[in-house]
Parts: sequence; C-alpha cells; structure tokens
Amino acid sequence: MAFKYLSNVPLDEAREKFLATLISKGLRLETEPVKTIDANHRIAAEAVYAHISTPHYNSCAMDGIALDASLTFNATDTRPVTLQAEQFHWVNTGESLPDNCDAVVMVEDVIDTGGGAIQLFGAAVPWQHVRQIGEDIAQGDMIIPSYTEITPAIQGALLAAGVLELMVIKKPRVGIIPTGSELVSPQTNPKEGEIIEFNSTIIKGLLEDWGCEPLIYPIVRDDQALVATSVRQALAQCNFVLLNAGSSAGKKDYSVGAIAENGEVVLHGVAIRPGKPVVLAFALEDEKVIPLVGLPGYPVSAILVMEELVRPALNLLLKQSYESRPLAEATVSRRLTSSLKYHEFIRARVGGVDGKLVAVPLNRGAGVVSSFVKADGIIEVPQNTEGYEADEKVPVRLVRKMEDINKTLVITGSHDPLIDELIDLMKIKSPGSKVVSSHVGSMGGLMALKRGESHLGGTHLMDEETGEYNKSYIKRYFPDGGVRLISVVFRSQGLMVAKDNPMQIESVADLTRVSYVNRQKGSGTRILLDYLLKQSGLETRQIKGYDREEITHTAVAAAVASGTADAGMGILAAAKIYDLGFIPLIWEQYDLLVDEKTFEHPEFKLLLEVMRSEKFAERLGKLGGYQLNNPGGEVL
Amino acid sequence: MAFKYLSNVPLDEAREKFLATLISKGLRLETEPVKTIDANHRIAAEAVYAHISTPHYNSCAMDGIALDASLTFNATDTRPVTLQAEQFHWVNTGESLPDNCDAVVMVEDVIDTGGGAIQLFGAAVPWQHVRQIGEDIAQGDMIIPSYTEITPAIQGALLAAGVLELMVIKKPRVGIIPTGSELVSPQTNPKEGEIIEFNSTIIKGLLEDWGCEPLIYPIVRDDQALVATSVRQALAQCNFVLLNAGSSAGKKDYSVGAIAENGEVVLHGVAIRPGKPVVLAFALEDEKVIPLVGLPGYPVSAILVMEELVRPALNLLLKQSYESRPLAEATVSRRLTSSLKYHEFIRARVGGVDGKLVAVPLNRGAGVVSSFVKADGIIEVPQNTEGYEADEKVPVRLVRKMEDINKTLVITGSHDPLIDELIDLMKIKSPGSKVVSSHVGSMGGLMALKRGESHLGGTHLMDEETGEYNKSYIKRYFPDGGVRLISVVFRSQGLMVAKDNPMQIESVADLTRVSYVNRQKGSGTRILLDYLLKQSGLETRQIKGYDREEITHTAVAAAVASGTADAGMGILAAAKIYDLGFIPLIWEQYDLLVDEKTFEHPEFKLLLEVMRSEKFAERLGKLGGYQLNNPGGEVL
Repeated sequence: MAFKYLSNVPLDEAREKFLATLISKGLRLETEPVKTIDANHRIAAEAVYAHISTPHYNSCAMDGIALDASLTFNATDTRPVTLQAEQFHWVNTGESLPDNCDAVVMVEDVIDTGGGAIQLFGAAVPWQHVRQIGEDIAQGDMIIPSYTEITPAIQGALLAAGVLELMVIKKPRVGIIPTGSELVSPQTNPKEGEIIEFNSTIIKGLLEDWGCEPLIYPIVRDDQALVATSVRQALAQCNFVLLNAGSSAGKKDYSVGAIAENGEVVLHGVAIRPGKPVVLAFALEDEKVIPLVGLPGYPVSAILVMEELVRPALNLLLKQSYESRPLAEATVSRRLTSSLKYHEFIRARVGGVDGKLVAVPLNRGAGVVSSFVKADGIIEVPQNTEGYEADEKVPVRLVRKMEDINKTLVITGSHDPLIDELIDLMKIKSPGSKVVSSHVGSMGGLMALKRGESHLGGTHLMDEETGEYNKSYIKRYFPDGGVRLISVVFRSQGLMVAKDNPMQIESVADLTRVSYVNRQKGSGTRILLDYLLKQSGLETRQIKGYDREEITHTAVAAAVASGTADAGMGILAAAKIYDLGFIPLIWEQYDLLVDEKTFEHPEFKLLLEVMRSEKFAERLGKLGGYQLNNPGGEVL
Repeated sequence: MAFKYLSNVPLDEAREKFLATLISKGLRLETEPVKTIDANHRIAAEAVYAHISTPHYNSCAMDGIALDASLTFNATDTRPVTLQAEQFHWVNTGESLPDNCDAVVMVEDVIDTGGGAIQLFGAAVPWQHVRQIGEDIAQGDMIIPSYTEITPAIQGALLAAGVLELMVIKKPRVGIIPTGSELVSPQTNPKEGEIIEFNSTIIKGLLEDWGCEPLIYPIVRDDQALVATSVRQALAQCNFVLLNAGSSAGKKDYSVGAIAENGEVVLHGVAIRPGKPVVLAFALEDEKVIPLVGLPGYPVSAILVMEELVRPALNLLLKQSYESRPLAEATVSRRLTSSLKYHEFIRARVGGVDGKLVAVPLNRGAGVVSSFVKADGIIEVPQNTEGYEADEKVPVRLVRKMEDINKTLVITGSHDPLIDELIDLMKIKSPGSKVVSSHVGSMGGLMALKRGESHLGGTHLMDEETGEYNKSYIKRYFPDGGVRLISVVFRSQGLMVAKDNPMQIESVADLTRVSYVNRQKGSGTRILLDYLLKQSGLETRQIKGYDREEITHTAVAAAVASGTADAGMGILAAAKIYDLGFIPLIWEQYDLLVDEKTFEHPEFKLLLEVMRSEKFAERLGKLGGYQLNNPGGEVL
C-alpha cells in the first residue's frame, strides 16, 4: 500500500528535472547590500572592484628620512654626502611620502651631524623603501569575481581597497513545517507513543551550515487542511518550503495533497533508499517561484534527501556548485545486498587499518539516528546493482577527513560501557584523539581483527572445556600469532530481571518458565548462556525468546525494563542504569585482543595510559560490578 | 633599530613555552548549559549519555496489525489462520506496540474476511516489523564523548535520546584592541596618510570561525597610557586579549609596555617571517589567567601569528587539537631565498597542471593583502634553511582543497582587465568554475607554459623585425609545437598622462623630458616601449623612471594619477578608470597562448564559450579601447 502511487525516477534524472523546472519557471536570485565588516561567509552577488588603490598613497615602508634619491647618487663609503635640513624629511613607517621625494633611507643608515644636517654613506635607489601607490591592489582592479564566498581575508582586502559595502546574495529563507500527530516539541519529555520532533533541528542546522536562514513552523497534526494552511503561511514568508513528514502515500500522508493544493508537483517518488517517498514541487507566489519539498519522515531519509535533492536546489539560489563528498575506495567488511530498483546509500564506519581502508556498514534502518553520528562515510550502491560481496572494493563518500580516518584507532568487539569510558578519558587527556568503536560481539571482533579490519577489540570468550577465557580461541584462530591479549577487568555477569525479581528467578534453570531476551550470535554473553544452559542440562529451544536478539547489554536491560521480557543476561553496570534486579552468576574476564602492529599506534599508547589511570578505576567504581585485573598488563 | 630588543625563539619552542606557561598558571575551562536545539557547532564539555532509549517504547514499524506471533505459527499458504477482532489490533507506523503483542503483520498481508475477522496466509516471526525499545540507542549509552563538536546530526541523536540540554564549553570572549594614530574606522573613507583599520575585521572573522566570541574595542592612538587603559578594560571583560599593532620595539611601539604594565611577558620576538615582532604574555585577573598577545601590524604577519600562536592557545580553552593544514609537495616555480634566522612562510598560488603540482610564490610583503586572497597554499621554509632552488620539490600547506586545486584552470601571463572579466563571466555561467590568474608579463607567461606550470596565458609579444605578434616567439621557444594561439582582441596601447595632458606629451620622444613609470621586464608593454624608443633613435637611459617598475596597467595608471610620474605606457581601459589623458600609439594584438592539452580542460571549454558570448563584447565596450579579433578563434 505504501509507495503505491509513487514514481521511481532515477536520482540524477529526478534532480535534473527538478532543477530544470525551477529554472524554466524563473527562479530568481535575491540580493542585498551588506557592510563589508559584516560580510564573512556571505556570497558576493557581483564582481567587486577596488574603489581606491592599496596603498592609496605612496607610503614610507621604514622609519628614517625621505628624500630625492638623485641627491645621494655620489655618496660612497669613503665620500659621504651631507644633506641640510631642508633637503630631507624625517618619516615614520606608514606615513605619506612627502612631495618631491622618491626614496626612503632607513634611520640606521643616517648619521646625524648636528644642526639639522645628516650624512649618508651610500646612494639611495629611487623608490627604495617606498610602498608605491597601487602596488598591491590598484583602483579598478577586480578583487573578487561574482559568487565568491567572502572570507575574513577577503574582507580585509575589500576594506583595504576602500570597499566598505557590497552586494551579496540574500540568504534564502527556508520554512520547515513539521507534521505528525505523534510529534512533541524538542523542549518536552515524550510519553509512550509520542516522539520528540528532532528532524527540524537537524534540518535547521544543515540549512544554517549551507548559508540559509531557516524558520521552523509549529508542529501540524495529521490533517490535510491544517497542513495546507501551514504551507500557505510559509509560502507567503519564505523562498523555499520543506514539509517533514507525511510525504509517502499511506493513509496519513497528507503532504502531497497539501502541496498539490498550493503548487505544482514535479514528481513524487525517487529511486533512492532511504528517501524514496519524496515530493518535489514548486509554488508561484506573486510571480515568485518557491521550491516546495516534502521530505520523508525517517531522519536518515530526510537527511539524505536534504543532501541529494534540496541542497542542489538551494545552490541555485546561492549560486554555489553542487559538490558531493570526496570519493574513496574501501574494502567492505561484509556482504551487502541491495535492491536493483534503488540507488542505495548505506552509512558506514570507515577505518584505516594497516594501510587498508575498511568500510563497516552500519544498521540500515531509516530511523537509526545513531548511524549518522557514527558514520565516517556513505557506501553507494547504484541502481541496477545487486550489492557487493564481502571484501569487495566499494566506492565510499567520506563524511570525515581522510587524514582523520587514517589516524583513528578502530575498536571492534564485545560491548562494554567501559570502552566508551576509555574513549572519553582519551579525549579528556588529549582532545584531538581519534578512536571509534563498534559492538559486534567477541567473536565478531576476533574475526574483524583476523581480516585486518580493526586494531583491537574487547573479548570475553570462555572455553567450555577449560573454563579459561580467550586463550584457546586465539590459539585456534591465530595459529601463527600476531596478536596479544591485554587484561582489563573481571566483570559481574548475571541475569537482569524486573526490580525486586517478581518472577523469582534464581538461576538459568528458571529461564524455562519466563520470557527471555538474548544477545546476538557470537557475543560472549550468548556463549556464556549456552554454556550455563548446557551445564544445567537444558536446551536452547526450551527458552522462550532465545531468538530475540539485542546487540548491547543496555539494549537487553531496556527490554527487561519495558516489561517485554522477564529476563536477559548482562553485566551489573547495565542493570544499575535501569534500576533492575540482578542475579549475579559469574565474574568473567574481559580482555582486549590487540593486533601486534597496534602497539605502535599513538592512540593505542594513549589508551593504555588512561586504562592504567586512577580516573579509569573511579569510573568503573561508579558503573559498578567490576574488579580491576591489572589493566593494561599483558595476559601471558 | 627595529627588532633590536626582540628575542628570536624558534616557532615550536615559542608555542610550547607559551602554552606550557598558560597551563602551569592555571588556565581554566569555562562551561555553560545550552539547549540541544541551540547547540550546533558548540563543543560538549563532558560525555553525554542517553536519558531515554530510542525508540523509547516498542514501536510498530509498519501499518498493519499487531498480535501475538504464536497465534500464527500454523498459518500456511494453503491453510490460513483466521483471527477474531479481539485477537489483534489495527496499528499505524510509529504507534506503540499494544500489550501482549510481539509482532506486526503488514496491511498488504492481511485479508479482511468481514465482521472484524481477518485471515493470514503465513506465520509471523516474533518481533517482526517491531522497532524494539533501545534497539538504536539505549538509555545510559554514551552518545558522544567529551569535547565532541556538536553537528546537526548529533543534535538529532541527542534529542531522540531525550537530552534536551547539555553542558558545552563557553565560547572564549576575545577582545581585539586596534592601536595606531594613522588608523581610521572601516566605516570611513580614508584620507592621505590615513589607513582603514581592517585587521580587526579579519581577526574577528577568524575568531568567529574558530568558535570564539570576538569583541572589537575602539581604535587607540599611539600613546602607552591610553593603550594600557584599554588593555585593563579588556582584561576585565574578556578571556583572551589581542593588541594590534605596535608590538615591535620601535619608538611608536607601545604594546609591549602596555602589556607589561598589566601582565607578564612570556616572550617578545619569535623566529618567524613574517610575524617576528609578536608579544606573548598573560595577565591574572581575579585569579583568572588571561592570555594577552601583541600582534604585528602588517596584516599578513597578524594572520600568521593568529594561526600559528593564537589559535593553539585558544584551543586550550576550546579543547580542540591543533591541526595544521594538509601538507602537499609541489614544484616551486622560481628560486626562493630565505634567511637562516627565520622559519619563513611564503604564500603561493598552487595549481595542478597536467598532473604536476606547481607552487608560484606570491609577493612576500607583509602588507600585501592581495596575497592572502590569492593564496592556495603556504610554502614553509624552515629555520636554518637557505631557501629552495627553482623546480625543487617543496612542502606546501594547502589553503584550498586539493580536489579544487586539481580542477583549476591556471592562467599565467600578460595582465589585461579582460582576463578578470572572462573569469567573472565564467563564474556567472557556472558558479562552481575554478580558475586563477597571475600577472607575470607575456614572456613570464610563455616561460611558465614551457615549464608546464600553467594552462594558458595572455600574450602580446611584437617581433621587432616583422611587427608581427607572438608567432615568432612561439617558433623560437616551442620548436616542437605543443601550443596553440587563440585570438581575443586588438587593444589600444598608448601613453597615459595627467588629465588634459599638461606636459604636452605627444609621442615617446617626449618621454625624455618628463618622469616615467615603467612595467616589469618581460612584459609585452615594456617590450613595446623599447621597440618604439629604438624606432625613435632613443636609448632607455634617457628616460627618467625607466627602472621604476609596476606589474599591471592599473598600477601604472595609479602612479600617473598620483602625480609621482608624468607618463606611463598602458591600455586605454586603465587610463579611463583613473580619468587620465591618453595618447594612443598602436592597436596591438592580444592573444592567448594555450597548451594543446588544455583544450580538454572543462574550464577552458567554458572560457572559450564565454569569450565568444555577447556579454563579453558588452564588457569590452564598457572598458573601452578594444576591438574584437574573432575571440576564441585560432591564430593560424
């Protein structure tokens, strides 16, 4: 039903059609005068020429005397020339060169012989130590061409050339209309079923960064008449109007109707994912063309449409060129399938490990806001492509600078809040430190290390036979060595249950009579559950919810806290955050598995340093459920 | 005399000493709460954790029905399951999952059988089409570590996680005190001997771009007591104080005295050029450490000191890391000598020509404001280095993005305002177009092309024997071809004289009795003068001012307009700008000399297009003194 009425126009074609329509309808540039001192980051609406020369008079470039150089032509080391007071002028740097003078002699070379007279022991060259009029910029010279972005340095040059005011492009005023009955203001704490309206804040920030003047309208509930009224108001006040959301074709999607009431739809639906249900339209208001775009509701979709379709249209008004992010080639860490129907954009962590650029795709959900906080790059899968195989080289648009990516320490492995605390302590110790972490479980981290895709990872893999942690796994997966194990902590693993343990859960045996929430395959915590179940003679199919997976301790705790599961396994620190009951089962050893080459990485040295600090111990104390285990020491 | 009392501490040592002193004296970070919706580009003062999970309730990810999945486990294509109204709930996307439900079935898969009942032809998997609580961000998860710069995407994630307010680093308030009796406000047109105070505007812009809150104080004249009073006022109101200028040790340099009256000087004089006479100091105000820096007066020096010494100190307050611009290696176009005593920074045009990166040093004068408008990069010559030979590979810090530099069309050759007009027309036609030009004269342009340092250049080299333009030079310097000549205009060259020609100059023969201002060696205009003098049987030493050089037509016109020269040779367009008298001598042919490979350059194609346009002809008409000569056609 959703998308039923939508077209599926390829991205480039859609962009071109939208821009061409706006141009053909007569989209107009607006300009305004601005004082040069206030022009930083504005766009010059026309070429700017120097009003005066700089210097605008012949100026002395040294402290000393100004004179007619020809008076000194006979002076030598042995036969100085003597000049009387009326033959020269004492001058300071920056002063105007006096009449009938064409040179300046430095004060150091002037011998005062008393009575106002002086001696010179060398000839002056005409125009020496004189900054000649116009030698930097001459009146009438073009200082900047049209559509140049003004920088502080350009402001300086304009002022020096006597340009105290200039014409700039008016900042497009962009109206943002949030729609949705479930939305509440970002100033309010939401209740269940309510969602904080944060898209407008993101969109506003992007618009400001792009040189626009955004204006957020009040949230409109899902009612086509109300949405249409708000659109009319925005059209009267703005140069560009964005609706968010309701741009699809479902029963509560009123955007396209409200837009059609007030303007003309160019197209509805573009072959991109996320972002497909976009409405590209325009209105005519007093003969002025106003672009009108219905953005999809999910934040990842909305941002993508902003970047791929809205910004190019804004650039028509700002006279800036459309430039995509720098392209790099990276090895993709796992298989990526994609529909032939869409040009797909997949956010990814990008890390430089041992000279190899690796892209780790993030959760593709269009609602996953964490993905755009974590993304270093965006993998593009063009339309009519089925996706990529693991280890294939893929094109990635970089969000962060390549230099930064190459300096970044990449941590991939088991989730524990202590990893985040270590990263924070690194930042505090050295604000420029660069480190990223991904939670893929202990086995996932081990495999990433083996594939050369990370520098290190947290790991707590218990050997079911010996009860020993990590070492047998390393022997199996790294038979030739190349990795080392760094100890960090023992941590208390147990069952998280509702407060006061109403279901009276005491051990894993009790899990057969309640609902459970599990961790993902390959996580040490899941392996621990399997081990404990086996010890108790139980099978996994006896646990209701064994297949329900979360990827962090805190996400499991959240599920228990919400009441949708009675129990989940995790660490005490997570239970404490949610004020849950906790049945401790085991103190497990949590180490870092580190590639040998990583020991040379500056950020890893910093990591070891903060791991051994008093502050780290304090933070663990606050989290609860940890015992220090010679942190930073090597497990032999 | 100048610099007499200054130390000459190496740059790195000076920076380290200044920062270490500020830290040891107890420089304090200031923080403040800010609403998340207003936090774009602010710096988080501490790690931020999620207040609520996102989603913060189990939410339906599709329009359809919510139910207990176990009710559907037996459904198949051939044996559908029928459910009664009380066994399921109709839901919309985003709604809270009803109690006792653990899955959503899409509306497309639900067959309405009437009477409120429905049929399903397949089993639902538990938790399908449900966004589970905390699956994106769980309450308690660290969203960002300390000192992260907030972006619009991070604002979105913070709001989604219920963080409506956060602690950020307070913007350092930086006082800027302009000093100098010759300075006038950038709101006033300057008289002779007055200089527009534009440094404060540049400094303010840089500070804003770096996340500070600048405050410009009124201009103080050169008087130590007045300067000291202004410093006291700024110390009471700011976190950081900058004086500009008077930081040297000349007789009007009061900064160091005024600073010493109010604080403690860490050092005075750093081994850099430009920028040597800097004062690094601090004051203690109510036990608060306030850095206090005396900036040199010349704008290029002031900017350099801002970047190399002030910004690192500000970064202590902003908890940002000091990162210099990306380093590239370029071939330097000419010999660069440098003093062993200084670490020298030389601004340069950097162009990518045929896969080779070339740096063309700009005028090194510390007062040359045009150099920082034109600079693409900064060549560093370390202390104890004598400089570089022409064609040597040198390190360049890039000011512009490498991608942009590589796409840029590099024009190097004879100056004519029509080149600037062409660039402007290119920008208007295609706002993203990238083109730079340098004025080095016709011969300079020809040699740059030969060395592979430019794509094309303007040229008007007359063969003294045949009177023909350009072709004999090409034969001589490019015997193997590889270049082509594109025609543009004929232009009127002549003598520019004061208005109404008071010296009654009629021909070059009259130049022997007046003062002259010449163009630089290798310029076509100088070659033309030499040719005309020879024809008249005159020698260059008979011309007073023959050695006085300017590098553009407009700079020559400015010299004549100022009365320091009676005549100079140049084009009618330049004479018109200055309202000068003009004695036409010759219609000369002005062509573009173009490397053959340049014909594939997209920007060159654009250049040809605008050169052939009606608008270009209009602009030439306004400038005056041109005849179109089949512009864009090839000279055969």
